[in-house]
Amino acid sequence: MTEAQGPAWDMLVSHVNNLRTALSKDGTEVEVVFFGPGLNMLLKKNSEYEERLKQLADSGVTLSACQNAMRFMKVTTDDLFPFASQVDSGVAEIVRKQKTGWAYIH
Amino acid sequence: MTEAQGPAWDMLVSHVNNLRTALSKDGTEVEVVFFGPGLNMLLKKNSEYEERLKQLADSGVTLSACQNAMRFMKVTTDDLFPFASQVDSGVAEIVRKQKTGWAYIH
Amino acid sequence: MTEAQGPAWDMLVSHVNNLRTALSKDGTEVEVVFFGPGLNMLLKKNSEYEERLKQLADSGVTLSACQNAMRFMKVTTDDLFPFASQVDSGVAEIVRKQKTGWAYIH
Repeated sequence: MTEAQGPAWDMLVSHVNNLRTALSKDGTEVEVVFFGPGLNMLLKKNSEYEERLKQLADSGVTLSACQNAMRFMKVTTDDLFPFASQVDSGVAEIVRKQKTGWAYIH
Repeated sequence: MTEAQGPAWDMLVSHVNNLRTALSKDGTEVEVVFFGPGLNMLLKKNSEYEERLKQLADSGVTLSACQNAMRFMKVTTDDLFPFASQVDSGVAEIVRKQKTGWAYIH
Repeated sequence: MTEAQGPAWDMLVSHVNNLRTALSKDGTEVEVVFFGPGLNMLLKKNSEYEERLKQLADSGVTLSACQNAMRFMKVTTDDLFPFASQVDSGVAEIVRKQKTGWAYIH
């Protein structure tokens, strides 16, 4: 997720749910990396999507906040939804996961 | 393809043609997955791009409509160009193809 | 890079720097492919980002101009920053690199 707001947020929730429905039998893991302006979606103050994100997290989807974006936006762990994870670098996380065989979708 | 309209549609046709020109000797297969708002491009009513898409299909490019997007947009097979294929889930199709060694470009 | 201008250019520089900081110990190579309207960022006339791009190039990042985009925009090698590389097709370059194990980020 790289978008600060807008229809991309709705799309994200739909796409992850569709992905899980289609691939759940394969035990496919899903991680969403929020970096750049996309970190916005994990901030407590943007509560509109909280319930939908919490449902994803509860169902096993990893929601990762980029710590570079956190520093850039002066955001601390307390500002994030409690169900968010953190990674040192969103872009590096995406590279590392692909290196270990994960697929990538923008 | 995730865009509902606009210059991304022109770019798509150029990019696929450039890709095929550069990689045709390798027998590289190309599939374009139309999901989310991007499904719009495969609807008969958007006839402006029909000829260019038909040329891609005729040359062996698979043009796949996401059935999740079809349900969401209340679109049936009859609403799609006759040369369109269908996949159960656009995002799952992209994951599955990468798992079997395909490259991905957004 | 596919964007003709705007905040995506700032994001690019940040993301590449963050990627290198996080992965430099692994000897990870980074290439940025400028294609479609994104070729704009490598033109000498867009000097605002020249210094930042030069720093990336000097640190070992490959900045590749798509020759298809060059023809389309009627741009020659003389119009590009001297530290830019060139590839025959930006999309084909991205496919080829993934085929040899590189990760991809949009």
